Amino acid sequence: MSLADYRAEHFRWELDDGVGQITLNRPDRKNPLTFESYAELRDLFRRLGEAPEVRCVVVSGAGGNFCSGGDVHEIIGPLVESDMPALLRFTRMTGDLVKAMRACPQPIVAAVDGVCVGAGAIIALASDLRYGTADAKVAFLFVRVGLAGCDMGACALLPRVIGQGRASELLYSGRAMSGEEAERWGFFNRLCSPEALVGEALGQARRLADGPTFAHAMTKRMLHQEWDMGIDAAIEAEAQAQAICMQTQDFRRAYEAFVRKEKPKFEGN
Amino acid sequence: MSLADYRAEHFRWELDDGVGQITLNRPDRKNPLTFESYAELRDLFRRLGEAPEVRCVVVSGAGGNFCSGGDVHEIIGPLVESDMPALLRFTRMTGDLVKAMRACPQPIVAAVDGVCVGAGAIIALASDLRYGTADAKVAFLFVRVGLAGCDMGACALLPRVIGQGRASELLYSGRAMSGEEAERWGFFNRLCSPEALVGEALGQARRLADGPTFAHAMTKRMLHQEWDMGIDAAIEAEAQAQAICMQTQDFRRAYEAFVRKEKPKFEGN
Amino acid sequence: MSLADYRAEHFRWELDDGVGQITLNRPDRKNPLTFESYAELRDLFRRLGEAPEVRCVVVSGAGGNFCSGGDVHEIIGPLVESDMPALLRFTRMTGDLVKAMRACPQPIVAAVDGVCVGAGAIIALASDLRYGTADAKVAFLFVRVGLAGCDMGACALLPRVIGQGRASELLYSGRAMSGEEAERWGFFNRLCSPEALVGEALGQARRLADGPTFAHAMTKRMLHQEWDMGIDAAIEAEAQAQAICMQTQDFRRAYEAFVRKEKPKFEGN
Repeated sequence: MSLADYRAEHFRWELDDGVGQITLNRPDRKNPLTFESYAELRDLFRRLGEAPEVRCVVVSGAGGNFCSGGDVHEIIGPLVESDMPALLRFTRMTGDLVKAMRACPQPIVAAVDGVCVGAGAIIALASDLRYGTADAKVAFLFVRVGLAGCDMGACALLPRVIGQGRASELLYSGRAMSGEEAERWGFFNRLCSPEALVGEALGQARRLADGPTFAHAMTKRMLHQEWDMGIDAAIEAEAQAQAICMQTQDFRRAYEAFVRKEKPKFEGN
Repeated sequence: MSLADYRAEHFRWELDDGVGQITLNRPDRKNPLTFESYAELRDLFRRLGEAPEVRCVVVSGAGGNFCSGGDVHEIIGPLVESDMPALLRFTRMTGDLVKAMRACPQPIVAAVDGVCVGAGAIIALASDLRYGTADAKVAFLFVRVGLAGCDMGACALLPRVIGQGRASELLYSGRAMSGEEAERWGFFNRLCSPEALVGEALGQARRLADGPTFAHAMTKRMLHQEWDMGIDAAIEAEAQAQAICMQTQDFRRAYEAFVRKEKPKFEGN
Repeated sequence: MSLADYRAEHFRWELDDGVGQITLNRPDRKNPLTFESYAELRDLFRRLGEAPEVRCVVVSGAGGNFCSGGDVHEIIGPLVESDMPALLRFTRMTGDLVKAMRACPQPIVAAVDGVCVGAGAIIALASDLRYGTADAKVAFLFVRVGLAGCDMGACALLPRVIGQGRASELLYSGRAMSGEEAERWGFFNRLCSPEALVGEALGQARRLADGPTFAHAMTKRMLHQEWDMGIDAAIEAEAQAQAICMQTQDFRRAYEAFVRKEKPKFEGN
């Protein structure tokens, strides 16, 4: 089944000419996550690995907020009563969502307005690009429910995005990072007005979807894989990866368009 | 012996309801380090590993300066005359101080005013959070005494906090980073007035000490350990670490307080 | 043969009392790279490993631009027609240039004005320090020719300099980073006027060349090597490296100058 025909149960899914759009959609409660929506998100991102009909993905929330994280009643309550195997099944499932987001070949653009906390902040963090608003409040507030900041990869991912010192403060304190701080610190790539936010994210996604998507997927894979490689090994890995990309038709198309002084039309192969 | 009764010889040590405070205290010479104070600091941070009576630590300097680093007469003079085994004993001892700071379970908040140079800059860098003033001058000035910037872990730690390019400049040139630069680059989490500095650092330490300290210790350990892990392995490590934290009473306390619409009271277990 | 007598074929090379200066020098075409200039740059940086007569290196471009990257006609055209062994020979050669820049003991200062794109942006990125101008345009524009952002180590190097989120945007989109952004994000260490740029870079290089160059080389090596080491291992590595530096005459010279209240004169041994 093509993802063009996919009907999501726990969020909204739309596919428009290669740009997939996930909208977390329980706006009355600021779009919390439940066991079911976690699992469905993870499964969708896993399916993206073999879905060439999707070339870029945008994640946003309905009603002026991104995501309020794991629902206290629907998730935290049951976890308090769970034994270790059940706890580990849960934390591995949420971690698997991040793994799937990083492993799928499509760049992911998060559009973040309003509340973006807990697992919601992690979903934004696990995206490739993040557009935000001045009113966005991004909080890794696990500590407020008595938990550690090391949730779903936060201690690995956040320091690489905003630096170790700033990440430490946010993870220990659980305080909200403002939109302005997020832009200044490199968490948000751009600040937009709330009205323009999703449109700008979709515009960026459209440009990426119209680009050399085979090469984008290679960029994403290497950004992931070189994380803990030495520099020399990373350079060799890139020599191989780029040589592979030099055998794509998109490389030839770009060259031929350049010679003809035209704009290249990429096809992702 | 509880650290409540500890009397430090080479600096000031106070413990107030879980918040330990180290004050480097030779203000006439801007709080330099000596062989003895290095060793005592290292030993204290090592003891913190088994000191549940301490839940957070603040490090500052007396008299408007943080620390002038290794004393030229008391440390550099003897080192110039030392043989390799003695040199390595010294560099390993100073490195062991940083290892002990990163390994102890308590978050460390540095309060940095005035001169903060050499090993003093490293002590600030090895802390978890850093509050500073506009007049602080942070210099990794090893190069000025003919040495390399790779001292006590600086080439590993500093790039993660302020980025590789800025770290390179500071380590090669030995120039002072201003307070304003330190805040802008993510070295300082906040700029305070000199009068308010230690109070604000103690306030943050108090909030952390009143938080879920078992979880804080897990956050600190994972920030340390995931440094050179791949993303997928880090996510699995966090799944395990967070599942452990979900079995604490603090997690239950937070949930139950939430249900009762109260503020949770954490106990670090 | 000393590098004092070296006559570069594909760029300008000057050596002035320990400060080597590479000027990319085809200003009519914004200083593009060719197969030959890549190879000659790589060979020169490799030779620097055994050239104590060079103590610091400045890289810049003639005519108000840094470098326009691989020439479309001279490089991309032939690559489109190449088979995999030839492609891999090319990507490994360009990667070897970066490896040689990171492996040579001399700090490298890039002076970046105007166009700095493609492999030119990588040369700036692979330098130790970067001085720029407000009008500089730094673009990792591989994506525009249908290729991936993982070129010559970019996916490893760029996130460490400007953070993972900003690096992702530049590498996926190929858009130009402005001079102001480059300074704000830590890519440029300083913004200079176009007139002052090369002079300021040479001034910094002069100061570094007059410093303890044995220690500088150790700093550079450790910044490279600790990239993917754990913190504890990095601290032990620095304990050894710094102990070695403590046996240099430069360390003694600095101490003795301090005692005599003089400025030390370093000799790099």
